[in-house]
Amino acid sequence: MKKHISILGSTGSIGINALKIADSLSSIIRVNSLTANSNFELLIEQTQKYNPRSICIVQEQYYKKLKSGVNSKQVEILVGRQGLIELSKRKDIDLMLNGLVGAAGMEPTLNAIESGVDVALANKESLVMAGRIINDAMKISGAKLFPVDSEHSAIWQCLAGENPDEVRRIILTGSGGPFRKRRLETFDDIVVEEALNHPNWDMGRKISIDSATMMNKCLEVIEAYWLFNLHPKNIDIIIHPQSIVHSMVEFNDGSVKAQMGVPDMKVPIQYALTFPSHLNSQWERIDFLSCGDLTFRKPDFDRFPSLKLAYNVLNTGGTASAALNLSNDFAVKKFLERKVKFTDIYKINHSSIRNHPWVEEPSLDDLTNLESWVKNHVNDF
Amino acid sequence: MKKHISILGSTGSIGINALKIADSLSSIIRVNSLTANSNFELLIEQTQKYNPRSICIVQEQYYKKLKSGVNSKQVEILVGRQGLIELSKRKDIDLMLNGLVGAAGMEPTLNAIESGVDVALANKESLVMAGRIINDAMKISGAKLFPVDSEHSAIWQCLAGENPDEVRRIILTGSGGPFRKRRLETFDDIVVEEALNHPNWDMGRKISIDSATMMNKCLEVIEAYWLFNLHPKNIDIIIHPQSIVHSMVEFNDGSVKAQMGVPDMKVPIQYALTFPSHLNSQWERIDFLSCGDLTFRKPDFDRFPSLKLAYNVLNTGGTASAALNLSNDFAVKKFLERKVKFTDIYKINHSSIRNHPWVEEPSLDDLTNLESWVKNHVNDF
Repeated sequence: MKKHISILGSTGSIGINALKIADSLSSIIRVNSLTANSNFELLIEQTQKYNPRSICIVQEQYYKKLKSGVNSKQVEILVGRQGLIELSKRKDIDLMLNGLVGAAGMEPTLNAIESGVDVALANKESLVMAGRIINDAMKISGAKLFPVDSEHSAIWQCLAGENPDEVRRIILTGSGGPFRKRRLETFDDIVVEEALNHPNWDMGRKISIDSATMMNKCLEVIEAYWLFNLHPKNIDIIIHPQSIVHSMVEFNDGSVKAQMGVPDMKVPIQYALTFPSHLNSQWERIDFLSCGDLTFRKPDFDRFPSLKLAYNVLNTGGTASAALNLSNDFAVKKFLERKVKFTDIYKINHSSIRNHPWVEEPSLDDLTNLESWVKNHVNDF
Repeated sequence: MKKHISILGSTGSIGINALKIADSLSSIIRVNSLTANSNFELLIEQTQKYNPRSICIVQEQYYKKLKSGVNSKQVEILVGRQGLIELSKRKDIDLMLNGLVGAAGMEPTLNAIESGVDVALANKESLVMAGRIINDAMKISGAKLFPVDSEHSAIWQCLAGENPDEVRRIILTGSGGPFRKRRLETFDDIVVEEALNHPNWDMGRKISIDSATMMNKCLEVIEAYWLFNLHPKNIDIIIHPQSIVHSMVEFNDGSVKAQMGVPDMKVPIQYALTFPSHLNSQWERIDFLSCGDLTFRKPDFDRFPSLKLAYNVLNTGGTASAALNLSNDFAVKKFLERKVKFTDIYKINHSSIRNHPWVEEPSLDDLTNLESWVKNHVNDF
C-alpha cells in the first residue's frame, strides 16, 4: 500500500525537496495533491511529472495560465486561499506535508489534524500561532504531528523508544546564522542580500532572514515547547556553527543523545514522510573524517535579542507567541521590501508583544483579529 | 519490587562503580551477591554495607580472613572458581552484572544466560570467546545481554525504538589511548606505567593496557559483531580523542544518532542496571560549552596493528577470536610482569591466531583445550 500525501507549498524549498524524495521512493509514496502560491510554471511541471489528483494555486491571477498549462481534465484545479483551505480538510490522504511559509500555514495544519490526517510539519508558525488549539485538536482526532524542521526531527528521532518523562532537557543547536561574527555596531547596515546568504543551509527567503536575526531559533523554542511538552527552562539553545549535530536530548541519567548528519533537509523530510522507518536513500552522507571539528558556543543574547523573546512569550502565554509570529511575518516582509532596517525587526516584534491586546486562551477568531491589529501596528512603525 | 542483582567482580572498577549506583538507587536495586578475586578487605567492607545474601572469594587463600572479617551467619560465603561458577548459575536474581576480567568471565555469562538471568555485560571477553554459544543459549532461555561498555551502551541506546534492519553501519569511537601521538619508533620502549596512564578513562589494569595497544577497540568490534548482528564491514572505528561521543549508529537514510556524555562508566552501568529507564542521577553532566571541540580522526592501523586483528578473526570465524582473546589475556599479563615488550603483545597475538588448532564451531571443551594450547604458546614466545 502506498502512502498518499499532499504537499502544501510544493514549489517552495521544502516542497521541491519532498518531491525529490517522492521520486526516490516512488514505490512507497503517491503524491495526491500539490499547492503553490504563485509559481504556476513550476506547478505545471510538477503536475505533469507526478500526476496528482488535485492541485491548487493560491494567487488567483495565475489560475488561467495554470489551467491552460496543465491542460488535463484528470486534474482538479482549486484556486485561492479558499481552495487551499478546502484541500487541507480532505481525508483522502495519509499525510499532509505543510511546507507553507508563515502564519498562513496555521489553518491548514489545524484542518488536517481535525480531519484525522497526520501532518508532516515544516511550518513551525502553525504551533507558534496556535499550539494549544492544535494540541487540543490532536487529542480529539488522534492525528499526529511529525516535525520536519531538522532540529525537531533530531529531537523526535532521539526520543524514539524513550520515555518522555525521563527527558531532563533538550538542546536545540543553531548555526548562529550569517552574522555570528559580524560587528554588532554594523547590524543597522545589514542589507537583504547579506541576510539571505546563510552559511550552511539552503532555504527559502523568510526562513533565511529568520536565521539571520535568530528569530528562527526563537520560533523553534516555541515549536519544541508544543511538540515535546517541556517547561521552557528545559529547552536550551547552543550555537554549533557546523550544523552537523542537528539537536540533542539530555536524559535524567545524564546520557545525551544527538542526531547528526549533513545539513540537508531531505533527511528530516524523508523521515517525516516515512516514519518510523529510516529507508535507504542516496542523499549525501556525513563523513566525520572530513566534516571538521564540532564546536559549541553560548548563544549571544545581546547580539540576537530575538532569542530572549521565545522565553518571554512562553512565560506570558496566551496570544503573546502569536503576536510575535504575526509581527515577525510582517516585519520580515518589510525588511525584504527594504522598508525597515535589519535591527528594526526585533524592535517591531518586541513592540507587538508588549502592546497587543492580550488574550489568555485565544480562539481562531481572536487570532484573526490579532492579525489585523498586528498588521496595522507594524505598518504604523 | 526491587531489582535483585549479583555483581561479579565487585572489588574491581566496574563493581565499585556499580555499588555507587546501588547506593544512589537503593530503593530500586537490591544487591544479592558479591564476588571478588583476592581483595577480601574491600569485600568485607562491601558485605557489611550492602548486606548481600551470598559472597564469593575466588582466591581460596583469603577465605579464612574473609570469613572472620564478615563474622556473620547470615551471609553465605562461597570460595574458589567453583564457588563463582555455582553463584553464576543461580536463578534467584533478576540481573547479573559481570565485571570480571578476561576470559574467566565467559563461563559465568553463559551460566546466567542458561539460567534465564539477564546479564549486564562488562566482560567483553565473554562474547569474544564464545559469541555463538552465548547467542544460541539466549535464543533458548530468552535471557538478554545488556552491554556495559560505554561504546556498546551508546549503540544500544541509539537503537532504542529503531529497526535494526535499517542500520547501515555503527561507528565505534575510541580515544586512541595514551600513545596516539607517540613516535612509533619508541613503541618498543613503552613501560607499564606509561601504558596504564589513560588520558580519559579511569579503568582497571588489563583494560588500560588493552586501550594502549588498541586491542580494546579490536575486542569491541568483535563484541559489537555478536551484540548487534552486523557484518564486520559495517562496524567502523573512528578516533575521537575527547571520549565525549561514546559511539554512533548510521541508519539507511543517512541519519546518524550518537550517544554522548562525560567519560564516566557510571552512566552506562546504571543504564544496564535500570534499562529501559534513564533514572535520575547525580553523576557529573556534560557541559558542551566547556568540553572543548569534538574531533574525529582516522584510526592508524600501522601504529595499532591490533585493530586489524578484529576483522581478521571475524572473517576467519570459529576459534580465531577466542585464540586472540586468550592470547591477549596472557600476553598482557606478561607485559604487566615486565616479561615481554609492549610491541610483543601484538606479535604474540598474531602468532596465536595463525598457529592455533582452528575449530569451526567450538564447544566449551574446545575452548578449554584452546586455553591450554594458547598458554603454552605464549609461554614459549
